[in-house]
Amino acid sequence: MAQRIHNFNAGPAALPLPVLEQIQSEMLDFRGSGMSVLEVSHRSKWFEEVLDDAIVRIKRLLKLDDRFHVLFLQGGASTQFCMVPMNLALPGKPVDYTDTGTWSTKAIKEARIQGKDVRVTASSADREFRYIPREVPVDPDASYLHVTSNNTIRGTQWRSFPDAGAVPLVSDMSSDIFSRVFDPSPFGLIYAGAQKNAGPAGVTLVIVRNDMLERVPDSLPTMLKYTTFAEKKSMFNTPPCFAIYVVWLVARWIEETVGGIDKMEAVNRGKADLIYGYMDSQDFYRGTADADSRSWMNVTFRLPTPELEAQFLKESLAQGLGGLKGHRSVGGCRASIYNAVKVESVQTLVDFMKDFSRRNG
Amino acid sequence: MAQRIHNFNAGPAALPLPVLEQIQSEMLDFRGSGMSVLEVSHRSKWFEEVLDDAIVRIKRLLKLDDRFHVLFLQGGASTQFCMVPMNLALPGKPVDYTDTGTWSTKAIKEARIQGKDVRVTASSADREFRYIPREVPVDPDASYLHVTSNNTIRGTQWRSFPDAGAVPLVSDMSSDIFSRVFDPSPFGLIYAGAQKNAGPAGVTLVIVRNDMLERVPDSLPTMLKYTTFAEKKSMFNTPPCFAIYVVWLVARWIEETVGGIDKMEAVNRGKADLIYGYMDSQDFYRGTADADSRSWMNVTFRLPTPELEAQFLKESLAQGLGGLKGHRSVGGCRASIYNAVKVESVQTLVDFMKDFSRRNG
Repeated sequence: MAQRIHNFNAGPAALPLPVLEQIQSEMLDFRGSGMSVLEVSHRSKWFEEVLDDAIVRIKRLLKLDDRFHVLFLQGGASTQFCMVPMNLALPGKPVDYTDTGTWSTKAIKEARIQGKDVRVTASSADREFRYIPREVPVDPDASYLHVTSNNTIRGTQWRSFPDAGAVPLVSDMSSDIFSRVFDPSPFGLIYAGAQKNAGPAGVTLVIVRNDMLERVPDSLPTMLKYTTFAEKKSMFNTPPCFAIYVVWLVARWIEETVGGIDKMEAVNRGKADLIYGYMDSQDFYRGTADADSRSWMNVTFRLPTPELEAQFLKESLAQGLGGLKGHRSVGGCRASIYNAVKVESVQTLVDFMKDFSRRNG
Repeated sequence: MAQRIHNFNAGPAALPLPVLEQIQSEMLDFRGSGMSVLEVSHRSKWFEEVLDDAIVRIKRLLKLDDRFHVLFLQGGASTQFCMVPMNLALPGKPVDYTDTGTWSTKAIKEARIQGKDVRVTASSADREFRYIPREVPVDPDASYLHVTSNNTIRGTQWRSFPDAGAVPLVSDMSSDIFSRVFDPSPFGLIYAGAQKNAGPAGVTLVIVRNDMLERVPDSLPTMLKYTTFAEKKSMFNTPPCFAIYVVWLVARWIEETVGGIDKMEAVNRGKADLIYGYMDSQDFYRGTADADSRSWMNVTFRLPTPELEAQFLKESLAQGLGGLKGHRSVGGCRASIYNAVKVESVQTLVDFMKDFSRRNG
């Protein structure tokens, strides 16, 4: 029996145990093919069934209508930071970004590298990105408005998205896709590195609306055009088959075991309430995000001193609670409580936090 | 006990059984981490040890000196078709390509899309790419000379590479990397989608020489610059951890079980001799590549009629010989006999071929 820890990693992150067990059980013989899923052709019926069913399930989970294409790319959200302006910026029109920290900042940088007319229309840089801006001015002239739905490092999350009218929203949802219900219709494009809520590292989910594909310049390299992936069902070249297979298993787990995104959201809300509720009841641990901007995915907090933080991380790890160190750029502590992290793990963490503060407070 | 077939897939393709068994055995608990390899952080000691050792082993296997960087990218060789000219074309200088079919042709197309001064200096298009050009004119003015070392579709392979003097060679080695000994020093850059000889789909190995990095234009998007990967040891963003882990296991298998690239080459030569030797001894099956241009990796052949080919494919599959269908663009039959395909599998195939021709000849 494998000894498993409570995994609070920020990404790559916890996967549902039944998903891992299924991968393990069919590693040498995938669905009677006599081959591993790592060995079957991407053009075989075995893989095409996985791909097709993954797309169907993702569309159903996110309530995507026929205007939307579900694509599987590679290169992470970082590659999307450059592909989005390259494909979706309209000639002579600005591209608008909100800046809620690291990932938005990088997305903005990549749009600027390409010489686009980038406007940062809202930012929380004035207070170390501890909050989500309330007011986002919208200019109908913009090519799109970009938001990072959840900031893993600062522990902030857009509770609702800005109303941009006819301007399409573009969102990096790497760290909260599949975690809650939202209306996809205002979005021209959504992208998500899979390694937090959707699967393993190595595949990037891109959801693109039909009208956005009309913007893609012919002059782009083939592998940098969204149209290439939309026209060839992500099979212009060999896709990252294994990572897509795991995304498929995760989507199936959300649908069949959890019961859909609304149920998943209820679980996630419960986990967030558990830990934030405890944090609000005491003053040993201090949350770093404003209460109204808190992420349900990444709970960032500090202890009274760096020494206590080091002690906390050491003791928690010894008790089987892993991944609680804050991002190297900000320090402190962080509990990432993505879809696959069970409420029991969050309860174990809260119990440990209580015990630790009693002994050290 | 899993029922495994003889896997002659062109890619994704057979992996060594001990590699698959190791993946399976540690799927729920990677090296005592209490997490799956799919769940550990890319910045954890568990993954960094894998990455570091993979680089060391690949450098040792290919006898790469300190001038070479081993990088892990995503997007397949198709993404390299655009990244190579984007990064390595010198201002005002042409880029030279040899055309040995499909993959070279696509590489050439992507260089042209970028408006580079592309010259096709040698081609075998005149005879359906059945051969590797003997004479390759070299112009010292060229930015680089590109070759596709092995053509999976036509079953051809450069037995030795052109002598380009001071012009750096750039090669797509997706389908024969790690299969034979070669001198890396004339190469400015080598790239290889892993899914044939090096691992699963989802990671692209890039080997780049120091002097090539000086050519990379500052103006490129971050994720499209080789320097980004070289400077950050392929960890600017989350790499495709699982695929890198499998490449590491495969490199370890070549070193420790097979005994290095020279031993691997001897095995591959033996397998190729077995099947080509048989084909040369009869006239039911006709090889499609010229004898002096034959690939040791992909053995392409035709039967007397399309009906017999269909029958051959059907019967072979029923006898546990999979993946023998030729590429959809050319038809016919193809046996891909990459590193992980055992000599016993090739012998089984040859025995089947003999039996089939006896019954249908």
